[in-house]
Amino acid sequence: MEEKETVTQRERLEQQLRFIVEVDKVKNIFRQTYLADGQRKENDAEHSWHLALSAVLLKEHMKEDVDLTKVMIMVLIHDLVEIDAGDTYAYDTAGAVTKREREVKAADRIFGILPEDQGTYFRQLWEEFEAYETADAKFAHLLDNFQPLLLNDASDGKSWTEHGVHKSQVCKRNERIPETSEIVWEKMQEIMDRHVERGHLKAD
Amino acid sequence: MEEKETVTQRERLEQQLRFIVEVDKVKNIFRQTYLADGQRKENDAEHSWHLALSAVLLKEHMKEDVDLTKVMIMVLIHDLVEIDAGDTYAYDTAGAVTKREREVKAADRIFGILPEDQGTYFRQLWEEFEAYETADAKFAHLLDNFQPLLLNDASDGKSWTEHGVHKSQVCKRNERIPETSEIVWEKMQEIMDRHVERGHLKAD
Repeated sequence: MEEKETVTQRERLEQQLRFIVEVDKVKNIFRQTYLADGQRKENDAEHSWHLALSAVLLKEHMKEDVDLTKVMIMVLIHDLVEIDAGDTYAYDTAGAVTKREREVKAADRIFGILPEDQGTYFRQLWEEFEAYETADAKFAHLLDNFQPLLLNDASDGKSWTEHGVHKSQVCKRNERIPETSEIVWEKMQEIMDRHVERGHLKAD
Repeated sequence: MEEKETVTQRERLEQQLRFIVEVDKVKNIFRQTYLADGQRKENDAEHSWHLALSAVLLKEHMKEDVDLTKVMIMVLIHDLVEIDAGDTYAYDTAGAVTKREREVKAADRIFGILPEDQGTYFRQLWEEFEAYETADAKFAHLLDNFQPLLLNDASDGKSWTEHGVHKSQVCKRNERIPETSEIVWEKMQEIMDRHVERGHLKAD
């Protein structure tokens, strides 16, 4: 019995390590957002690190109670599907059409590498994030939207300028922030208005 | 009263956002370890993301009970001091002498940006990590040591070969892994022995 348990533990460890090495690829999935210094674009691993850390700090500003641990794990894994599906830019309407299909297939493969219980857990967290219904998912989306806004702010709206983004597009993308945190929404508006004034975001 | 609380909340948010933008710099602190594909070196943000995610998966293999949330936060922040102090390579004995002094100064400045309660919390977590005494700190160190071993394994021992690293150096660095997790230590030895055989690590 003891030996059988050890074998299982070893098999679990091997599956976990295969996953850990596989997801290293997300460090090569680059986003459209520039780092704060504007020198290069950010990748998904860096982005996810930033969100998890921000979750710890910004939790206090959310209207609803959230489960910090769950949100941290959710944001750490939310972009792993992009290893196969690629990054779809927030304002790419053509890419958005096939996004879900590509990402579901990726989730099957990537979370399927893990021991079943852990793969199912990650898959459920990813689906919860995508569904954008629970307080935890809303907090995760707030982080996912606020962080690039902060980097755009720090880098003089570099990716907004490059893509000719309109303020209305940013507002549309962030339309559910007010129900998640009023103070963060106020701050977002302040940032957007400043960059409309400076000509980095197009007024409508 | 309500207005005063709102002002405080705003001040806290501003401090938190200043910190979030400041720590973006850790994405430009590069380590000696190559990504799994061997194409470029890894930076501290990517490394920290990888550790936090691995914490969720590998917790079950630890001898002692650990606080997952605390360990995740610990690994997310453990390298922030390198924004000012730089990365000291694991096998750089000259750099190790001044490391502590440089890092304490960095911790004062960087964690000092945050609201006092949050800055103190992060500082304590960083000190706990550095002291390497609690079960949580031991788990965090295991992650911090195991992940580069996995990347070295995946990239044919690239950074070991470049630095002419001896197996005894890796063993010395990992001497406290057996007390943290036997199964992980067995796996580490298996990896090291394979790379000694292939000539990527020097036998002693």
